[in-house]
Amino acid sequence: MKGDTQDMKPRNPKHKLLLGPGPSNADPRVLRALSEPTLGHLDPDFVAIMDETTELLRYVFGTKNELTIPISGTGSAGMETALVNSLDPGDKAIICIAGVFGERMVDLALRMGIEVVRVDAPWGKAVDPEDVRKAVRQHPDARIVAIVHAETSTGVLQPLEEIVQITHESGMRIVVDAVTSLGGMEVPVDRLGLDFVFSGTQKCLSCPPGLAPITVGERALDFIVNRKTKCQSWYLDLSMISRYWGGERFYHHTAPINMMYALNEALRIIKEEGLEARWARHRLNQKALIAGLEAMGMRLVVQPEYRLPSLTTVYFPEGIEDVPARMKLLNEFGIEIGAGLGEFKGKVWRIGLMGTNSTKANVLTLFAALEDVLVSMGAKVAPGAGLQAASAVYSETE
Amino acid sequence: MKGDTQDMKPRNPKHKLLLGPGPSNADPRVLRALSEPTLGHLDPDFVAIMDETTELLRYVFGTKNELTIPISGTGSAGMETALVNSLDPGDKAIICIAGVFGERMVDLALRMGIEVVRVDAPWGKAVDPEDVRKAVRQHPDARIVAIVHAETSTGVLQPLEEIVQITHESGMRIVVDAVTSLGGMEVPVDRLGLDFVFSGTQKCLSCPPGLAPITVGERALDFIVNRKTKCQSWYLDLSMISRYWGGERFYHHTAPINMMYALNEALRIIKEEGLEARWARHRLNQKALIAGLEAMGMRLVVQPEYRLPSLTTVYFPEGIEDVPARMKLLNEFGIEIGAGLGEFKGKVWRIGLMGTNSTKANVLTLFAALEDVLVSMGAKVAPGAGLQAASAVYSETE
Repeated sequence: MKGDTQDMKPRNPKHKLLLGPGPSNADPRVLRALSEPTLGHLDPDFVAIMDETTELLRYVFGTKNELTIPISGTGSAGMETALVNSLDPGDKAIICIAGVFGERMVDLALRMGIEVVRVDAPWGKAVDPEDVRKAVRQHPDARIVAIVHAETSTGVLQPLEEIVQITHESGMRIVVDAVTSLGGMEVPVDRLGLDFVFSGTQKCLSCPPGLAPITVGERALDFIVNRKTKCQSWYLDLSMISRYWGGERFYHHTAPINMMYALNEALRIIKEEGLEARWARHRLNQKALIAGLEAMGMRLVVQPEYRLPSLTTVYFPEGIEDVPARMKLLNEFGIEIGAGLGEFKGKVWRIGLMGTNSTKANVLTLFAALEDVLVSMGAKVAPGAGLQAASAVYSETE
Repeated sequence: MKGDTQDMKPRNPKHKLLLGPGPSNADPRVLRALSEPTLGHLDPDFVAIMDETTELLRYVFGTKNELTIPISGTGSAGMETALVNSLDPGDKAIICIAGVFGERMVDLALRMGIEVVRVDAPWGKAVDPEDVRKAVRQHPDARIVAIVHAETSTGVLQPLEEIVQITHESGMRIVVDAVTSLGGMEVPVDRLGLDFVFSGTQKCLSCPPGLAPITVGERALDFIVNRKTKCQSWYLDLSMISRYWGGERFYHHTAPINMMYALNEALRIIKEEGLEARWARHRLNQKALIAGLEAMGMRLVVQPEYRLPSLTTVYFPEGIEDVPARMKLLNEFGIEIGAGLGEFKGKVWRIGLMGTNSTKANVLTLFAALEDVLVSMGAKVAPGAGLQAASAVYSETE
């Protein structure tokens, strides 16, 4: 068998511009950090990196929460961590659903034996806080309200502030999916007193996928520490994981060492830029993106006040075939944009400007490429319309 | 806040020689692979890497099993995947326990509402197949027998062949933890018809921690496909994950892209060497290690026929303080060896020679350093005894 990889091609993934719903491109500094030498998971040098990473995560989450750590799995592992550490089997949970990731929370909760109260919103719309108020009144025995802050399947930013207020007035805890918002806009953990928030590394943190940052407030931590039933998951049990991240360094599982280097570097980059500057950058580039898309005659899915700065959903021009157009963009220009999911499949594209990728250069590059692809497929697009409208946004602010 | 990382020190983890129970050092080629550009999780170029990786995993597992993939978590996530996809709540499982990782399986199963039948062996000993036979006879309604092939807490290689035979004669399925064996010795998946096997990347595969390769036999797959209750974990539900890895490419969660590059490269390296050559290398270097340790007057924990080629447990000399000795080895020589766990804490060291790390150079380096550390702490060691005895083993075979 020896030597029989000779017929394998070199694995040389090209650089592509990832402007879909994630993963986004990792910063080159983050990619370099990944290849630093592996240390033992109890090595004092690694422990120092862990400590600094939790400090930086607290900065990005805007929190003083002690339990602010990355979970050893992708964003969906963060979601599962949030639910299995917030609820006992038989508990009642109010879940807001306005897309794929809200449905995922329902699926997850039902597997755990949770009684789920649904608060639905149509695809592409925000959840109505009044619907949450009704649910909370009808089900005062529910333990949590769960909501996706930034719904990656629709590009809708949910009205978090009102929903948190309603939740807390009822004495319930709020669980927030911030996978697509963290690092691209404010996730107001301490400002609103969010109880349990989870995210992923591969969106606005500009780090490859593989870790799920979480932060846990005091009330949510009380439940974890004092619960009488064991968490149904061993791998995601925060009562044990927190003992590894805390001063005790109690061995739980072997941390994904090199991914931790990457996250550490990604968070340093965010702190260097500053959160407010980073959020403003995401808003500006999305504004230019939207101006260009509309100038090209495309219609946005989400009404202005609920648009997510990091992810824009747009109906692509009629007569254009979805898959061939995206493949042309990928193959000829090395640019990935996202397909529609669920109800939006075959109707909508999802364009992400996340983290390092949210730049003027990327916006203008996209319009140059998009015009070429659409025109070549027979769409009627005024020459240069997208580019000019986007450029005008930058001119106004420079 | 901008620019306020200026007071942070550069994160420059030193190269250390990781001769503990894992993580072991990743091959430099694997570290380089980690920093390749991130691709989208549905990008055709990434899909090709996925396909090749499953092929290479089948080679390393010695199997034709279609469902042979890496799970997006560390080895313990692999363990949880195995149990939540093999059992329904209320099922009965026979679990062999001979150390920390057998106990971990029990903890996991109890959280799932499984009725656990324990087959215990003393720490540092092998499980007695006759005890398994008794358990199987007394509990013919059990669905699985679970066992840790290579118990990382004790360095014991369990007598898999007999236990598998007993299990299969009873019509039960066998679940095998191969975290510390895969890539360092045979894991006889198809030869013995193992039903569900999981491993980790950070031991004998010489890849950083973060993924858990698994392989699932036909009978175990039948259960997954036809079960009536949903798997309690969404993140680890193989009925869905297999649709992403299969031809359908159905989106489940965003794969840890860069870790997949690393695993792909690690598996290529294994195939280039050839499995048999790799296993022989692990045996030879362990033989030299044992000869040296015994020549230095240290006593091995495990009797010869049950010694794990990749991990050796040894009582350290009386009068030597555990932590200061290991810290001296780490700080002065950059060599990490492992502490004892559980019953062996403060009595035993665990020395791993795993994957890329299993070399003559590392064995001899370890003895040079170990003699210096032990002598400086007052141990009576014949000068050069360890080195000479280890060298003699190599001379015999060269």
